[in-house]
Amino acid sequence: MSTAPKQPIAGFSKLSKVGKIKWIVENFFREPDTVMRELTSYWHHNEDQQKVLDGFSENTISNFLLPYGVAPNVMINGQYYCVPMVIEESSVVAAASSAAKFWMDRGGFKARVISMIKKGQVHFLWKGPREKIREIFPELKDAFCRDVQPHIANMEKRGGGIRNIQLRELPEVEAGYYQIDVDLETCDSMGANFTNTVLESFAQTLIAFFEAHPGFSTEEREVRVIMSILSNYTPDCVVRAEVWCAIQDLGTFPNQIQAEEFAEKFALAVQIAKHDPYRATTHNKGIFNGVDAVVIATGNDFRAVEACGHAYAARDGQYRSLSDCKVKDGIFRFWLEIPLALGTVGGLTNLHPMAKRSLELLGDPTASELMQIVASVGLAQNFAALRSLVTTGIQQGHMKMHLQNILNTLGASDPEKNLIQGHFSDKVITYQGVREYLERIRDQPATFAVKP
Amino acid sequence: MSTAPKQPIAGFSKLSKVGKIKWIVENFFREPDTVMRELTSYWHHNEDQQKVLDGFSENTISNFLLPYGVAPNVMINGQYYCVPMVIEESSVVAAASSAAKFWMDRGGFKARVISMIKKGQVHFLWKGPREKIREIFPELKDAFCRDVQPHIANMEKRGGGIRNIQLRELPEVEAGYYQIDVDLETCDSMGANFTNTVLESFAQTLIAFFEAHPGFSTEEREVRVIMSILSNYTPDCVVRAEVWCAIQDLGTFPNQIQAEEFAEKFALAVQIAKHDPYRATTHNKGIFNGVDAVVIATGNDFRAVEACGHAYAARDGQYRSLSDCKVKDGIFRFWLEIPLALGTVGGLTNLHPMAKRSLELLGDPTASELMQIVASVGLAQNFAALRSLVTTGIQQGHMKMHLQNILNTLGASDPEKNLIQGHFSDKVITYQGVREYLERIRDQPATFAVKP
Repeated sequence: MSTAPKQPIAGFSKLSKVGKIKWIVENFFREPDTVMRELTSYWHHNEDQQKVLDGFSENTISNFLLPYGVAPNVMINGQYYCVPMVIEESSVVAAASSAAKFWMDRGGFKARVISMIKKGQVHFLWKGPREKIREIFPELKDAFCRDVQPHIANMEKRGGGIRNIQLRELPEVEAGYYQIDVDLETCDSMGANFTNTVLESFAQTLIAFFEAHPGFSTEEREVRVIMSILSNYTPDCVVRAEVWCAIQDLGTFPNQIQAEEFAEKFALAVQIAKHDPYRATTHNKGIFNGVDAVVIATGNDFRAVEACGHAYAARDGQYRSLSDCKVKDGIFRFWLEIPLALGTVGGLTNLHPMAKRSLELLGDPTASELMQIVASVGLAQNFAALRSLVTTGIQQGHMKMHLQNILNTLGASDPEKNLIQGHFSDKVITYQGVREYLERIRDQPATFAVKP
Repeated sequence: MSTAPKQPIAGFSKLSKVGKIKWIVENFFREPDTVMRELTSYWHHNEDQQKVLDGFSENTISNFLLPYGVAPNVMINGQYYCVPMVIEESSVVAAASSAAKFWMDRGGFKARVISMIKKGQVHFLWKGPREKIREIFPELKDAFCRDVQPHIANMEKRGGGIRNIQLRELPEVEAGYYQIDVDLETCDSMGANFTNTVLESFAQTLIAFFEAHPGFSTEEREVRVIMSILSNYTPDCVVRAEVWCAIQDLGTFPNQIQAEEFAEKFALAVQIAKHDPYRATTHNKGIFNGVDAVVIATGNDFRAVEACGHAYAARDGQYRSLSDCKVKDGIFRFWLEIPLALGTVGGLTNLHPMAKRSLELLGDPTASELMQIVASVGLAQNFAALRSLVTTGIQQGHMKMHLQNILNTLGASDPEKNLIQGHFSDKVITYQGVREYLERIRDQPATFAVKP
């Protein structure tokens, strides 16, 4: 690898924040003082605020800033939202806004939650006879429910709680391997901590039950809990967002593409993503561009949402598009069904100062409302991406947005920017091409001077 | 939904940044002035720097701050790294650091890149006879290579370029549907823009070729390009990270768990994630906690990495664990194979000021080195999560970390924090429990007063 080997450090986590930075800049950077100043320049000026941010994670030395933008005019079930989006990729917010505006004039997004069941599992080994554990399971279930009561009383008051407890046998993993499979409702919280607390209570009950129950022999008393943990795969926590209109109301598109042709190409593009995993991955990635931007803005966990959504996309044995399209009887219809385990209370939702503001911007939604908003933005994103792809191609719009980034990296001045934007308005934009053109401008200032 | 319907707005994107914020705070917030001040408090004080951040996205009004932490002592192929991690979830950085330290004493991570091929597709319809297009394809390929030359010359100089061009037939999608399937190497760039530029050039060539080639009848000249776009599914851009040691060198674990028992439980936990998608989703989510944190810190696109990794996890028809474990002949071996299409030049890697510093902190790695670092951190994360799960349970460590967050939300003072941390050191931590205990402290200050 490219740098000289560094030595390990003992007790790093015990150093103060400045102590940590000092060790880092002195050991890894060519200009320690500059980097020290730079890292601290991203701290929030309010010390208490910064402490809250630092508390989210460990060994924190600075903040990583992501652009916070909004997509206005997102009409969902007849109501307008201005949706906060946190994303570092060019043209995602522009695309969502543009698709939202397009559908605003055609009835907006229709969204509804299909179900909101979360899932958790206690994994264990028990070597006794299968029939015995099946037979005794109702008693075990009662014990679970009794012992867990203090941990769930508050959730039950809010309308949530445990919905189902099942015994799952998976001898294909190992002989005597079982799961206690738990369905839960967690109201407006994502429910990870609640679920894990319930499961760890179940695990203790499980051991105590096998120890105390008179029906077991000495060998049968041995039950080994492997682990107790929520599942992020929640195929029963699903929301549907949809748009539709008469084909002729789609209007016309760039490159003289008419409504009928657009609808046909668009539907084919979705079909391709239904059949080909190579295309489906990118297709769904586009959906998650929108989904994650809102998930992050509202203090939710995008890794959980991603893992669940993609596993769901592969649920029938092949990885496929999460969205679907039908053009029939003169109607264009485009929809998305996606599992989204989100919270609007608990976790970081009320702790991160900007997440709290994001939720306020959305009208302090319930978890179910947030699911509908996120799914609608995912659908908007997917619509915008496919619309570009089947009409102008993705590069034209994307690179126009990215040109600004390229110009900033190259340190172009404002007059240089104007010249370059003009020049590339009808050409293929590449980093290399822009750089070379800028060099020519700088080498021959007279040729490029703005005419009076 | 919970708030009054708002009106749409026209020309929002044309408003100045302050104009945008003004419209937002006045229309959606109870305390417009406070929110205005808060949103602007997250701006970077250096205006040029802030402009660069704003340029990444659209309709930007502020920044979303994520904690920037580091995991020191990550030993990969004999070299020590201090790895930057951007993540808002408690205990991820602590877990990575702790696992890195554990393996540092046992030989560290061994990582190697298996292959680095990226993928792109031109999707098109052509209704002529299949044999004809197959037969003429070599000529078409030559035309692609000739026309694309100006766009790839620079990439070829750097050692990259087009590696393979294939015709794929997928009549199951629609009769006459084909793909031009392109394999590319993009050196140290992630290569999205390069790939898309190549593909759009191919699409133009395709149309021109069918128009001009003497071998086609008039009807056969009609070729319809549906779209031209990279695939984020890159099963041939894969890295492997691995750890191993003698079982007895694993040492002992909390709850009197000995090395042998630990290895067995750990391996079983991985097997479960190999067989059960409910478990696999959460298992892989843990891997991506580590992966994404480094991906974001280095200015790469985590949606692309997530989509690809999860699609890869489902490649054999069932969604499974990305990591694997074998305990055999006295050796404990744990490894991860994951597709990672990353860049260390281009995109945001050099544009985002903190991404640039992250790469410097890592010794300005090549893309191949970065793949090895990211995979090692993913493996470290997975090891730490499973180690907790099969020994103490996840809640103990996680909630200890999260307790700080809870105390911050509840506005606990320092003496209150001390009392509460002491009280909960051996108890189940829940938000509710902590709140109630804090209320008791506040209701009965005399009882809880610190004894002199």
